[in-house]
Amino acid sequence: MKVSVLHGVHDVRTEQRPVPEPGPDEVLIKVLSVGTCGSDVHYYEHGRIGDFVVEQPLVLGHEPSGVVVKTGSAARLHEVGQRVALEPGVPCSVCEQCKAGRYNLCPRMRFFGTPPIDGAFCEYVVLREDFAHPVPDSLSDDAAGLLEPLSVGVWANRKSRVGPGSRVLITGAGPIGLVATQTARAFGASEVVVTDVNPRRLEVAKELGATGTIDVSRENLAEADFEPDVLLECSGVPAAAGQAIRKVGRAGRIVLVGMGGDEIPLPLAHVQNFEIEVTGTFRYANTWPTAIALAGAGEVDLDRLVTHRFGLDQVEEALTIAGKDDSVIKAVVLPQEGRVG
Amino acid sequence: MKVSVLHGVHDVRTEQRPVPEPGPDEVLIKVLSVGTCGSDVHYYEHGRIGDFVVEQPLVLGHEPSGVVVKTGSAARLHEVGQRVALEPGVPCSVCEQCKAGRYNLCPRMRFFGTPPIDGAFCEYVVLREDFAHPVPDSLSDDAAGLLEPLSVGVWANRKSRVGPGSRVLITGAGPIGLVATQTARAFGASEVVVTDVNPRRLEVAKELGATGTIDVSRENLAEADFEPDVLLECSGVPAAAGQAIRKVGRAGRIVLVGMGGDEIPLPLAHVQNFEIEVTGTFRYANTWPTAIALAGAGEVDLDRLVTHRFGLDQVEEALTIAGKDDSVIKAVVLPQEGRVG
Amino acid sequence: MKVSVLHGVHDVRTEQRPVPEPGPDEVLIKVLSVGTCGSDVHYYEHGRIGDFVVEQPLVLGHEPSGVVVKTGSAARLHEVGQRVALEPGVPCSVCEQCKAGRYNLCPRMRFFGTPPIDGAFCEYVVLREDFAHPVPDSLSDDAAGLLEPLSVGVWANRKSRVGPGSRVLITGAGPIGLVATQTARAFGASEVVVTDVNPRRLEVAKELGATGTIDVSRENLAEADFEPDVLLECSGVPAAAGQAIRKVGRAGRIVLVGMGGDEIPLPLAHVQNFEIEVTGTFRYANTWPTAIALAGAGEVDLDRLVTHRFGLDQVEEALTIAGKDDSVIKAVVLPQEGRVG
Amino acid sequence: MKVSVLHGVHDVRTEQRPVPEPGPDEVLIKVLSVGTCGSDVHYYEHGRIGDFVVEQPLVLGHEPSGVVVKTGSAARLHEVGQRVALEPGVPCSVCEQCKAGRYNLCPRMRFFGTPPIDGAFCEYVVLREDFAHPVPDSLSDDAAGLLEPLSVGVWANRKSRVGPGSRVLITGAGPIGLVATQTARAFGASEVVVTDVNPRRLEVAKELGATGTIDVSRENLAEADFEPDVLLECSGVPAAAGQAIRKVGRAGRIVLVGMGGDEIPLPLAHVQNFEIEVTGTFRYANTWPTAIALAGAGEVDLDRLVTHRFGLDQVEEALTIAGKDDSVIKAVVLPQEGRVG
Repeated sequence: MKVSVLHGVHDVRTEQRPVPEPGPDEVLIKVLSVGTCGSDVHYYEHGRIGDFVVEQPLVLGHEPSGVVVKTGSAARLHEVGQRVALEPGVPCSVCEQCKAGRYNLCPRMRFFGTPPIDGAFCEYVVLREDFAHPVPDSLSDDAAGLLEPLSVGVWANRKSRVGPGSRVLITGAGPIGLVATQTARAFGASEVVVTDVNPRRLEVAKELGATGTIDVSRENLAEADFEPDVLLECSGVPAAAGQAIRKVGRAGRIVLVGMGGDEIPLPLAHVQNFEIEVTGTFRYANTWPTAIALAGAGEVDLDRLVTHRFGLDQVEEALTIAGKDDSVIKAVVLPQEGRVG
Repeated sequence: MKVSVLHGVHDVRTEQRPVPEPGPDEVLIKVLSVGTCGSDVHYYEHGRIGDFVVEQPLVLGHEPSGVVVKTGSAARLHEVGQRVALEPGVPCSVCEQCKAGRYNLCPRMRFFGTPPIDGAFCEYVVLREDFAHPVPDSLSDDAAGLLEPLSVGVWANRKSRVGPGSRVLITGAGPIGLVATQTARAFGASEVVVTDVNPRRLEVAKELGATGTIDVSRENLAEADFEPDVLLECSGVPAAAGQAIRKVGRAGRIVLVGMGGDEIPLPLAHVQNFEIEVTGTFRYANTWPTAIALAGAGEVDLDRLVTHRFGLDQVEEALTIAGKDDSVIKAVVLPQEGRVG
Repeated sequence: MKVSVLHGVHDVRTEQRPVPEPGPDEVLIKVLSVGTCGSDVHYYEHGRIGDFVVEQPLVLGHEPSGVVVKTGSAARLHEVGQRVALEPGVPCSVCEQCKAGRYNLCPRMRFFGTPPIDGAFCEYVVLREDFAHPVPDSLSDDAAGLLEPLSVGVWANRKSRVGPGSRVLITGAGPIGLVATQTARAFGASEVVVTDVNPRRLEVAKELGATGTIDVSRENLAEADFEPDVLLECSGVPAAAGQAIRKVGRAGRIVLVGMGGDEIPLPLAHVQNFEIEVTGTFRYANTWPTAIALAGAGEVDLDRLVTHRFGLDQVEEALTIAGKDDSVIKAVVLPQEGRVG
Repeated sequence: MKVSVLHGVHDVRTEQRPVPEPGPDEVLIKVLSVGTCGSDVHYYEHGRIGDFVVEQPLVLGHEPSGVVVKTGSAARLHEVGQRVALEPGVPCSVCEQCKAGRYNLCPRMRFFGTPPIDGAFCEYVVLREDFAHPVPDSLSDDAAGLLEPLSVGVWANRKSRVGPGSRVLITGAGPIGLVATQTARAFGASEVVVTDVNPRRLEVAKELGATGTIDVSRENLAEADFEPDVLLECSGVPAAAGQAIRKVGRAGRIVLVGMGGDEIPLPLAHVQNFEIEVTGTFRYANTWPTAIALAGAGEVDLDRLVTHRFGLDQVEEALTIAGKDDSVIKAVVLPQEGRVG
């Protein structure tokens, strides 16, 4: 099969590898669509993210959908032909975190496209069967892959207990900010205000349900007449985070989703006087059923995020286009021959 | 009656004022003991704490106990002669925060010794009857007053969900750190490690139930072989907080209790990767029943904290002794004539 | 002013009383619309509900809307002319339950139309200002009154933690079942199945968002291919409740909303093996803001419930029509002269 | 090895079987002590519990401790020689319930001594390594086995949110009631009242920390001057449960632990008016660490429960002695030759 391999910074090569065999509790999946993510771009540009270093050839890609083409000897959940969304991280299932229902915090997690585990920019992958989630016909292949970023949004909204009547501030209108926006609305938030410095993205945010937007390159967030009870920080810009935190009202909740910078300056008196809860998210746990319900019912529109499509030979282009074209929201890779162009 | 009044920085005067009359739902209380708190000292030294500025003569003191000597026309909870601990902040009871059970976040809170509301360094005070909590005979007058700082410890432990088996790190062995330590043990924590730079305080922490102590003037906390699932930050030193946060394990909870510094440097990747929850506490809500149960049953020893006692004429001495004598843990003021030496 | 007074079983009389004066923290409200409730009917038919006995003339009606016409000396929340929904129970605000945010459990609650407290079947009422909730123009007078039953639905959905992806079974398609259905959908439930023995009501349930209905006079619920994770019991029929409970899946939640019968037969092994949580609701707390958000945004349709309207002289007719005409969902009383017919 | 096998009602035989081989992620454990449980007795007397029917020879016993004597090829958690407590149910770890942290609700759970899975009345057993919990030297072999019933008590207290200041009613002073009593105290409950009809058991309850006892063969619980906020129903007697439920105060929590009877009569108005939460427990999840912490620190005394000891040839005697001698609290089986007598 054809595989797109990262050999080092700015060095992606298309290669041939044998199609893998599913283990007893695994399924073999023909990959149909894979979203590209900022972390893929980061590995391509820098060869590392924090302590995770690309030390050997690595296949990127962790937002895949596909179709089951073979089942392991003990697999019992899927039939061949089942179209699935892939939850791209498989935990050990036996440690303290896993048993407590926090499998995303499993120290032995094997996550697609995170060194040294290969991802999905290839024609076939194997996956533990219970992490392949059947998807309804109402979801496109692209949307099925983008349930992964949607899961990030679901997790952030769940952690911050967004519900009917919530007033939510979302900083950053990138793909995660946009799915967080839609999810907040689907969770019942009555006000969702989105900030960014890119007016085009803010337009999309509005289109997808934001009740207000603030272009923070022109307006001062501090002066905005909006006191959220929830802040979903999706920009990854520490200064933006620090400023947004001060907007949150009494008993508010803040979830730090965006990555970037070593430290967030936490305004102590504000956090104390208002007893604000701050946390961060690391991927997600048990989110696919909800994500499928929301996207499948049309409450969240994932196809709208897809602005560019590439073949497996064009992964490098997919990973670099964001820097060249500010109309990019989400580029997807379609690994099967002849699906693009 | 005699009242100790703060007129400005380093200007405390003993004066005469009329004994107040209780309103319909209030009781008049003869004050028996009042703990001094770091915030009293701060107003004495600086004339302000953040936005709260002493702009007119102010009576300090918010850790009082006393005995009911008169009841308002509609008061029905207490008999004259009832010994009580005073919860020193009375909220509006009708706003959104109050109705949600978060009365400590009431924006119209009237709190003893916080400008412009007078406190308890005086012979008599009035209080809404439901904030006067009857205390059992097993509690001394001093201990009854110190249910206030104990409430801070109870609230911090409650917010961080300390329970049987918890491993708790407490930074700072001042009065709050010491009540937090005892409370953590009473909540069932199996390990409670306390840090400070003062070895005498660490000795007291051990005596009061700490299972371990670290003198951070000599040892590096980062190297300690202890991964807490809860951090109660009671030092108010931002750098100490920043370092301690990095010790907390997966799904850990951090409560910022200590005040000091504008911003805490929050290590983003650590908070995200371990999905740590961070919050701050602002006073407390609904803690007196638990505090009374713990102290009344001897699970928490408040008398051990009292190292010095002063009369109403000696409030200035009570507020300055901490800076002169490092054996001070808690100085109390006894407003009734002849009760001190 | 004109007042409709219940003097005993089947004895309702229209009388004249003086317009009441608002107390310092109260407002005087001209009543615009008042929904009738099953409990009003029950008092009319039986003169009591459980321990609450009509022992002196009683004004019924606890689902009112109105307009502020006068404000008390210390009232500060509303202007004269403000249209409001009335939350019809005023707690003491100082007891343990109130302080914990559970004011609906206040033992000194004064609730409209519950002996010996008069309700709103009259031209004017006074109310503590913080229980008069301003309503947006998008809500009709009738809808503003029906925020009260909607609050019951909000509370039940909140207690059972309905959210995106929930599968909800609602037994009983009376007014409460119908608002619970709409609320469940607004909270994000993906499946809401409603049962009743009245096909007309089931039709309305479908119209208002139920994804499925079961006519339990013809179909056996036990055989239905639906495993809910939440049951909202709104029928008040013990046998129906007992059967429905057995349908609930692992870790499911059950809220008993409907009143009727002394005891519910709780299937022990089912509750244990699946660790199902069962609770009941008593009115509601802190629900108006959410109810206003939902109804104001059109996510819940309250006007659809109103099938009959009566004047203040026709209260008896309003309370008896349900027994005569199975098309009745909700009859409202319009106390202002000339508003009906 | 020697195995005690239940062949049918009242038919237990000691037989020889080969020592099992641990699978890759399993360990082989030499069994040191196994508590007998009411469910063992029930299988012996009736050949079934509800839907679980003994249809082929079955080894009973699910409260074992032992020592690791061999490790599977992929096992990495334990060294040979490690003394362990056995958590006797191994879930699938991949289903929805397992992933949510509720592995006790796993529909594919394999539980010791529950048909058709063999238990621990034998010399050696194999177990998935992560369900073998190392125990400290402070715990006896018997106590290590009895961490299983203690886990039931921990789970019940956790589910009911017992904490500092709680007032707990425990109905039934059998082994589960007695561990629940001790656990409630260790969780901080200030009042724990235990009921039973056996005065000897009530004496033991007192000895182990109950603050009050009620002999319900002589006193009427309904008249007792005690309003608990938590009820742990450990008697399994439906009528006792029904009566005890009516004692629980506002916002109280009830956990149905005892098994017995098909239906509990749930007093609807009481559950509604007080918004009481009722649930049942099915075994436990993630309780061993807490149980080990409590018993290891001496906060719970498990050895006190052991009143009788038997060898592997005496299992029948161990299962029948409870009916003959009312001094029995807990009989344990010591499978290794020569450890008894």
